[in-house]
Amino acid sequence: MPKRVDHEERRRAIAEALWRIACARGLDGASLRDVAAEAGISLGQLQHYFSSKDELLVFALKYLSGLAEGRIRTRLMRLAAPPAPRDVLRETVMEMLPLDDESRTGNLVQIAYFVRALHDERLRDHAKEGVPALRAFFAGQVREGIARGEVEASRDPDAEAMLLIALTDGLTTHLLLDACAPEEARELLDAHLGRLFTP
Amino acid sequence: MPKRVDHEERRRAIAEALWRIACARGLDGASLRDVAAEAGISLGQLQHYFSSKDELLVFALKYLSGLAEGRIRTRLMRLAAPPAPRDVLRETVMEMLPLDDESRTGNLVQIAYFVRALHDERLRDHAKEGVPALRAFFAGQVREGIARGEVEASRDPDAEAMLLIALTDGLTTHLLLDACAPEEARELLDAHLGRLFTP
Repeated sequence: MPKRVDHEERRRAIAEALWRIACARGLDGASLRDVAAEAGISLGQLQHYFSSKDELLVFALKYLSGLAEGRIRTRLMRLAAPPAPRDVLRETVMEMLPLDDESRTGNLVQIAYFVRALHDERLRDHAKEGVPALRAFFAGQVREGIARGEVEASRDPDAEAMLLIALTDGLTTHLLLDACAPEEARELLDAHLGRLFTP
Repeated sequence: MPKRVDHEERRRAIAEALWRIACARGLDGASLRDVAAEAGISLGQLQHYFSSKDELLVFALKYLSGLAEGRIRTRLMRLAAPPAPRDVLRETVMEMLPLDDESRTGNLVQIAYFVRALHDERLRDHAKEGVPALRAFFAGQVREGIARGEVEASRDPDAEAMLLIALTDGLTTHLLLDACAPEEARELLDAHLGRLFTP
């Protein structure tokens, strides 16, 4: 099915053009025409694949999430088996934070989407879609930590998971603004995890 | 100096028009012309006060910060004197979170500004301006907690301050997306503070 593959490749190339714009100048006011120009195709060709900016954003975001998940999986596979829950949480958050160009791009596209989602209920549903899965994953690690005697049994895994997600998002904001240095973000994350996991 | 007062009032009225747009549909793509229309004045009249969208955003943000500081001060004055550091931190964060229309508006304008600041170094310097002052205020409360024997002396006040700021920002994101309910945000904040302050 070479034709199908071509279509998917074209969609990805368009999404990548969107990312480049997101990184260079942000998506505020960027039109489908701008994206088509960046991708080196006509607006009509682009519209063959995406009929609206929101549709393109959703695709670009899913594509980015897929890449991020792949990077997280690669990181986790490098941990000794079975991996310690604390290491799993640390490596996952470290990969989510905008500490390199790829995750910085991912975060910028996500923020562009987030800002649009604030004023569009349909987009909002989509924007918060990933939260429950991430929360369940983090909560599972905290539960595993409790089972291994590394986390106090009085901790609520679900609450700890949401605290860690909120902390990650807050650190992301400050890293993107250069209000927090990468080294400091790492130390703050370790301080937080150090209090969740008993030595 | 009635003329001067009028000028300041006019600037505030324009800023308030910007806020209404920020709340209703976001500032993505909103022009000075849109703001002038919302304020019921001509574009020329608006430009007499603000020559660019960024200039207006800076003013609107400072105006909002001033109002937010006033609300925080009012909340803190209601606490028994001398107020306990834990209560000061709790009340301050509660006022910063988008839990009512006014602070929701403040957060939406701040995010609109933040998104522009990501791609503009000059704006970025301005966007992160408030962080050191807030951080110093929070760190001072943690230090006071240590002095009162309510916080373990091993805690780093400056790191704790930044963790609390990051947590506040992360909870803000999830509250704005309705990915986190107000009651849950309160519980998470209390859980975090409960671990910083020993009973």
